[in-house]
Amino acid sequence: MTIDVYFSPAVVDEASVEGRTAVVIDVIRATSTLTEALANGARAIFPTVSTEEAVKLASSLGREDTLLCGERKGLKVEGFDLGNSPREFTSEVVEGKQLVMTTTNGTRAFVAAEGADRVLAASFLNLSAVSEALEGCTGLVIVCSGRENRFALDDALCAGLLVRNAVGDNLEGCKLNDGARVAADLAEKYTVDAEFLRSTAAGNALLGVGLEHDLELCASLDRHALVPEMRDRRISVEP
Amino acid sequence: MTIDVYFSPAVVDEASVEGRTAVVIDVIRATSTLTEALANGARAIFPTVSTEEAVKLASSLGREDTLLCGERKGLKVEGFDLGNSPREFTSEVVEGKQLVMTTTNGTRAFVAAEGADRVLAASFLNLSAVSEALEGCTGLVIVCSGRENRFALDDALCAGLLVRNAVGDNLEGCKLNDGARVAADLAEKYTVDAEFLRSTAAGNALLGVGLEHDLELCASLDRHALVPEMRDRRISVEP
Repeated sequence: MTIDVYFSPAVVDEASVEGRTAVVIDVIRATSTLTEALANGARAIFPTVSTEEAVKLASSLGREDTLLCGERKGLKVEGFDLGNSPREFTSEVVEGKQLVMTTTNGTRAFVAAEGADRVLAASFLNLSAVSEALEGCTGLVIVCSGRENRFALDDALCAGLLVRNAVGDNLEGCKLNDGARVAADLAEKYTVDAEFLRSTAAGNALLGVGLEHDLELCASLDRHALVPEMRDRRISVEP
Repeated sequence: MTIDVYFSPAVVDEASVEGRTAVVIDVIRATSTLTEALANGARAIFPTVSTEEAVKLASSLGREDTLLCGERKGLKVEGFDLGNSPREFTSEVVEGKQLVMTTTNGTRAFVAAEGADRVLAASFLNLSAVSEALEGCTGLVIVCSGRENRFALDDALCAGLLVRNAVGDNLEGCKLNDGARVAADLAEKYTVDAEFLRSTAAGNALLGVGLEHDLELCASLDRHALVPEMRDRRISVEP
């Protein structure tokens, strides 16, 4: 089994993902939020890079059952229905809806990964479910969203836990790139909890904009047993 | 003390280095090679990004005491005097010479760091000397050259050893970014030797082009007690 971990979408090219299963991670917060939204009955999420693209796509999908969601610098985009706080995506708000979502880092990672055979979304909220979905996979690439293309420890730990689960007792039979090795090392060192997230750069930035409570939700390990998958830039859960 | 580690020059901007001391690392092989060259009596090294720029600069410096050095895909550029193998830079070859050097990743890192107050070059060959030169520094940024902007474990371990030495017993008094934390973790886990370097992506690429013996030299911890410093794109050692 070949496992590559990349810490930024900017270094992921067509050749990195071709013929592989890709897993996109943005712990704080895009993949946590979309997992929460799908668990609460959202039909699908459409990731877009720019806010303009989001507005346009929401119009073409039909505004009556579509919610416009996204953040810049952690806060809701003005005029949008929702930001990127997983706590906003309750069943009262999202059930039966389609969501168009633009976030600073996470959306770019989905775009970078889209040439893969399959594109899954992982966070601490659905770590075990994604790990199970990867059983039998022989070529895995994990794309961490990072922060403005920089290394993000929260994403790297989530990647490391996926690597550890994928490798199991078969380290000899696995070919890991430098990123995958380091991610796996982190999985031996750190524990998933809100305190850990608070200590990361991304977590610290959320404290700065008053969204500390998001971190408890983002740290909820295996809160949902579902595997979001993207097809044609539409993320949903197989029924 | 503030310590930031970046794993790729591409994410280093003016603001990342301003007012700081920067340390550039390219274990395999640019900073190892230039340390070896300076130890063997080279007067200075001029890093350039492109081969064209290298040829032009060597002409303007005067070809009689200037050597053109550099690699692409690990091998010497055609028509150049030397490649990027530290074993080529013996005192017989480089003593009293100026070297114009272009390498795939390392040169970019020097360019990215050049807005810092000071720019030093580190490798395993001069780790303790650079650590000593950093005593009293309050703002440190370490720029790993990486591989085509991707994470390189060899550079990250070297960064981690520098972080560990800089932090000493004062972890509470230090502010580390996510990259610096992970680099420091690696310093607890890995040992500097040729076997470690062989296991990294950069080391493995050297095996592929028949330059395995470079790895033993690149792994020679504290072989030289010198601190290369760049001023106006000229790297030398203070007399």
